[in-house]
Amino acid sequence: MSTLNLTLLTDLYELTMMQGYFESKSTETVVFDAFYRSNPCGNGYAIAAGLEQVIDYIRNLRFSEEDIAYLKGLGIFHDAFLDYLRAFRFEGDIYAIPEGSVVFPYEPLLKVIAPIMQAQLVETAILTILNHQSLIATKAVRVVRAARGDGVMEFGLRRAQGPDAGVYGARAAMIAGCIGTSNVLAGQLFDVPVKGTHAHSWIMSFPDEYTAFKKYAELYPDACTLLVDTYDTLRSGVPNAIRVFREMRASGIELRNYGIRLDSGDLAYMSKKARKMLDEAGFPDAVISASSDLDEYLIDSLKSQGAAISSWGVGTNMITSKDCPAFGGVYKLAAVLDEKTGEFIPKIKLSENTAKITNPGNKKILRIYDKESGKIHADLICLADEEFDADRDLVIFDPLETWKKTKFKGGSYTLREMLVPVFLKGECVYTSPSVMEIREYCKKETDTLWEETKRFTNPHEVYVDLSDKLYDIKRTLLNQMGRD
Amino acid sequence: MSTLNLTLLTDLYELTMMQGYFESKSTETVVFDAFYRSNPCGNGYAIAAGLEQVIDYIRNLRFSEEDIAYLKGLGIFHDAFLDYLRAFRFEGDIYAIPEGSVVFPYEPLLKVIAPIMQAQLVETAILTILNHQSLIATKAVRVVRAARGDGVMEFGLRRAQGPDAGVYGARAAMIAGCIGTSNVLAGQLFDVPVKGTHAHSWIMSFPDEYTAFKKYAELYPDACTLLVDTYDTLRSGVPNAIRVFREMRASGIELRNYGIRLDSGDLAYMSKKARKMLDEAGFPDAVISASSDLDEYLIDSLKSQGAAISSWGVGTNMITSKDCPAFGGVYKLAAVLDEKTGEFIPKIKLSENTAKITNPGNKKILRIYDKESGKIHADLICLADEEFDADRDLVIFDPLETWKKTKFKGGSYTLREMLVPVFLKGECVYTSPSVMEIREYCKKETDTLWEETKRFTNPHEVYVDLSDKLYDIKRTLLNQMGRD
Repeated sequence: MSTLNLTLLTDLYELTMMQGYFESKSTETVVFDAFYRSNPCGNGYAIAAGLEQVIDYIRNLRFSEEDIAYLKGLGIFHDAFLDYLRAFRFEGDIYAIPEGSVVFPYEPLLKVIAPIMQAQLVETAILTILNHQSLIATKAVRVVRAARGDGVMEFGLRRAQGPDAGVYGARAAMIAGCIGTSNVLAGQLFDVPVKGTHAHSWIMSFPDEYTAFKKYAELYPDACTLLVDTYDTLRSGVPNAIRVFREMRASGIELRNYGIRLDSGDLAYMSKKARKMLDEAGFPDAVISASSDLDEYLIDSLKSQGAAISSWGVGTNMITSKDCPAFGGVYKLAAVLDEKTGEFIPKIKLSENTAKITNPGNKKILRIYDKESGKIHADLICLADEEFDADRDLVIFDPLETWKKTKFKGGSYTLREMLVPVFLKGECVYTSPSVMEIREYCKKETDTLWEETKRFTNPHEVYVDLSDKLYDIKRTLLNQMGRD
Repeated sequence: MSTLNLTLLTDLYELTMMQGYFESKSTETVVFDAFYRSNPCGNGYAIAAGLEQVIDYIRNLRFSEEDIAYLKGLGIFHDAFLDYLRAFRFEGDIYAIPEGSVVFPYEPLLKVIAPIMQAQLVETAILTILNHQSLIATKAVRVVRAARGDGVMEFGLRRAQGPDAGVYGARAAMIAGCIGTSNVLAGQLFDVPVKGTHAHSWIMSFPDEYTAFKKYAELYPDACTLLVDTYDTLRSGVPNAIRVFREMRASGIELRNYGIRLDSGDLAYMSKKARKMLDEAGFPDAVISASSDLDEYLIDSLKSQGAAISSWGVGTNMITSKDCPAFGGVYKLAAVLDEKTGEFIPKIKLSENTAKITNPGNKKILRIYDKESGKIHADLICLADEEFDADRDLVIFDPLETWKKTKFKGGSYTLREMLVPVFLKGECVYTSPSVMEIREYCKKETDTLWEETKRFTNPHEVYVDLSDKLYDIKRTLLNQMGRD
């Protein structure tokens, strides 16, 4: 992705609409919000991810002559419009919630303020990137939580939905707290730890399992994890591993980072049996790792069963977010600038489905923290120019069930503006932290959640409320449209 | 993907194993099979896809100095091995089932015969590419079938798992029979039709819906599909569309490729109401298209309900294969060449789970067709050097339930070898057809299936049997391992 020109990574209708705006000489400045409507996998929150790749995309947005020739060949674009595309640059503003942040439904993760043609073009790629990485980060944060402090390794590349899904999925999984990935390209691109030992084919390529283990141990005495399930885990694999560990010790090697990997069978039973065999043989510090169709529910269950596993390799279910493989983020027009007054005119999209009605206006998000515990009370979506004073009482209410009100006493809470400037007038004003820095930040972010919000099922919902002013605008627009 | 060097798109363990083989001076030639164990989405077959990208990957396999420096920095690879990587080229043979083919579980979709280090390195990327595209092609063939001859458009880019998933997913969906994609980059890369009109934001950016429709119709009179659900489909959207169609006709425009798109609400009800309104207004040929969280089940249900929809835009559920987002293809060592005898020594991987026991040996796949109907009777996996004469009777049996036998009378069937040479001694000997050619071929391929195999649920299973010789080898190896 870093070298491929992604300018044409867009839906055709973005370009047909752009030509429409071009022909109508529409240069209006508009506000688009990228937001999502429900947390994936039944989680109580999501983890925002993908901003660095959005920045790369925006920075490299250029129609090459080859692109122009291709578009011309479609027979639907006029020369004047194609000339406009030739000179196209993104010149607008983008605000976004930093990667690794805890986020909630309906709040803009990213906001574009730009001339309408520019804001329209970037819709699809922004959604593709944010939807994918936020999805995998959210899935991975669940898996990491299930492991209760054990290390989780990302092992999913071969089952990812294509190369990018493997590479950027690994990035997102690292952000969410994995300790490493098997994906070497991800390691190279993002400077994150890469891990891995050997496959069944290593074992099978030798005359017998013992010889294969022995050879491996000679080569990698400092990272010797032996895969024990090629033939028979408890009758062959573990005994052969113990034999090799004994020989290593006898030859004077100090065993440190060593152990076995289970990749099939009943992991609870197998791990306890293997633990006992290893302990009795004098290898109580041999690590037992596991990697067989794991997800957060299976890891949680194995932990509850007392499985003797302390290292987890997670593949398919995490890299595809198997039980919920799409994030569902959307990109909606929220306001149009009135050039005479310099004010944003709020816009709303109705729907048969109330949940699909958008929040109008040029907005910002304020996160309300409990001052003492640092935990999140709620998020407040308000207009970008609204000011709140944390020394004064704050009453918020549920935008659907408006009688539900919560009051925060002045001085007992703090406010944080979540959307930060990323591009201003087309210039990038934001420096992405490294992936490992984002990972640290993400860990702190999840610490701002109450335990009840972190449950795997039926988590406590964090309120995302609208300011009085925003609510009034929305109600007025709905009334104008003949609905409430 | 076409320009990014994917050489490091691999699991670290492929490289640690390679170094192991390098250190043991192992230059053995081996056979690896890429196969899968069950059809996604409960389908009765899968569609093979991704071979062209596998070819690109193999051809571009080169460790750059930057890659070598990165690997050296990991501190686990020796200089001699890194020198070996510097000069690395793939020099082996690859056989594969052509893209667009109907395939079944347990048969190799792709077979690598190469020195062990080379065969090992390519495992991960081959699986990533084949797994992804075969998954989406298989999902899409179901969606296309549900539409019963109506056109299906691929609209999923924004919900794809990253840019590649969007681009190569669109490719796979086209192979499976979609008539176009919204994805412009996929259109450019694969020379497939791109489609699209406008989004809600187009409507919302104008003072009212009528003006937005009118403007769009002026711009694109030859492809005028109006999105009617921004405010109120039946009270505002359809009447405004009719008004614009009337005005177009009144101004002398010959309406051909025109209609409306429904993107929310009860599509069965809405489409029938809209159809009636359009018909009564004198627009019986206006096409009604729909695009709201569609999948094969919903389309099938809408068709059964008599929904007045004849064009389908399918996004999230197809581009992610939402109900089954991973293909599960694996890559297993099947044989090692005995350099003295020049014969392949079959290898087997056992497992606690019988379904995970591999088929040993250097194999080929023969597809048995009914001579008269051209339909598939069964597939026969046999050793690469076995010969069968279609003029003689052929008895095949189920490899698990061996008493289940089927006899085909000589002369009543034909045989086709499914694996074709793609690389020989490192040289590519295969020219990929264009995506639209593969699409035509895929259509013919699905015509070789009996109707019962194409059912969405509980399809008739096509037998994939083993030849007597292969079965004997497998049984002998299992017995040697102490199991049967």
